[in-house]
Amino acid sequence: MHHAHPHPEHHLTSSAMLQDIVIGLSDGLTVPFALAAGLSGAVQSSGLVITAGLAEIVAGSIAMGLGGYLAGRTEVEHYDAELKREYQEVQDVPHVERAEVDELLTEMGLSESTRHQAVRELTADPDQWVRFMMKYELGLEKPDPSQAPKSAFTISTAYAVGGLIPLSAYFVTDTPAEGLLWSAVITLVCLLIFGYLKSRMTGQPPVMGALKMAGVGALAAGAAFLVARLITQE
Amino acid sequence: MHHAHPHPEHHLTSSAMLQDIVIGLSDGLTVPFALAAGLSGAVQSSGLVITAGLAEIVAGSIAMGLGGYLAGRTEVEHYDAELKREYQEVQDVPHVERAEVDELLTEMGLSESTRHQAVRELTADPDQWVRFMMKYELGLEKPDPSQAPKSAFTISTAYAVGGLIPLSAYFVTDTPAEGLLWSAVITLVCLLIFGYLKSRMTGQPPVMGALKMAGVGALAAGAAFLVARLITQE
Repeated sequence: MHHAHPHPEHHLTSSAMLQDIVIGLSDGLTVPFALAAGLSGAVQSSGLVITAGLAEIVAGSIAMGLGGYLAGRTEVEHYDAELKREYQEVQDVPHVERAEVDELLTEMGLSESTRHQAVRELTADPDQWVRFMMKYELGLEKPDPSQAPKSAFTISTAYAVGGLIPLSAYFVTDTPAEGLLWSAVITLVCLLIFGYLKSRMTGQPPVMGALKMAGVGALAAGAAFLVARLITQE
Repeated sequence: MHHAHPHPEHHLTSSAMLQDIVIGLSDGLTVPFALAAGLSGAVQSSGLVITAGLAEIVAGSIAMGLGGYLAGRTEVEHYDAELKREYQEVQDVPHVERAEVDELLTEMGLSESTRHQAVRELTADPDQWVRFMMKYELGLEKPDPSQAPKSAFTISTAYAVGGLIPLSAYFVTDTPAEGLLWSAVITLVCLLIFGYLKSRMTGQPPVMGALKMAGVGALAAGAAFLVARLITQE
């Protein structure tokens, strides 16, 4: 889900791996926490909460990891297909592609005489011409084929680690209610810290980021709790 | 999660809303299906599977929707912050920014004399200059502030709709095992159709796309089932 933007060095400090950890942790801390909280309001046994929680972590981390892997592969295939198409177009309908270059340069704000010169230079070499179209017309950067499996693994692992944090409380407590109390304390602290660090990393106001992250978790957990309560009291 | 690429018209046919539906449905069909499948191997009551499934759907759709909304808001704030910064830089260190324009044009493949002329034209007007830097140096397009709440709502709803499909089987069957059988049939058919349509929409081979989508769901459900079985048999 959601990768492969250009990363200009001096404006962003996060690497692709850090971004994947953030993606996995955000969902991993939130959804299993909320599911376990919801079940705590509906069942009498911590064992059931743990079983459902672990099943969710496995399901979620496979869906996110494998889904991310396939999305990454699709991105590589998409790039290659568009690349082939641009080479074909440059060969078959060069006048159309030349007009597209001219249009892009007009949007940038170049005068007619500069454009005339620039179009001639940009279209002199087919490789350079196609590279220009890929990047500036389509906004596509060549994706790194080795990124997809790495991303999948990182997101999966981060999701599982994130999910085990709220669930751990149920392992060491006797009742679901007690588990929920400690789970909420641990998870909200983690969400606050994580939201703070994430916002610092992306240059956003960190205290606000911490509160937002904890707010999403609390809201999801509260809603899941209410729904599970309502069903079981029917 | 994952938005705001430039959308060149003749190469992609999907709108932002369709993309959001795809995001929500992919996860909604997969994770609640896998969780319910996992629990079916571990508990005797369909009521418990339904309770856990609905709690998961509520948790997941709030986490995805609200998470998506906050991410969209952050994107708007990030754009505005970078915009302010570029205006500042253009005013305070114009020679540095002019050199950056020249560097970008060199990468495109323009000759020195064309660059000389182009740099002068692109930096004549501060608004145009900043717009050029935002788009071509940072790869940032002005985000639409009304997109975040719309996206959040669409993703949430799609997740919930997707999740109710596999869960519906447990409403009309007597035992979790029977529920699982029908849930698997319905969900795999939906994943095949959805994968087929999604791949057609994005110009990928549709049959392969259908199989991949169903494969992710089957694998996640199988793994969740095994894990839940193992825990409860301890």
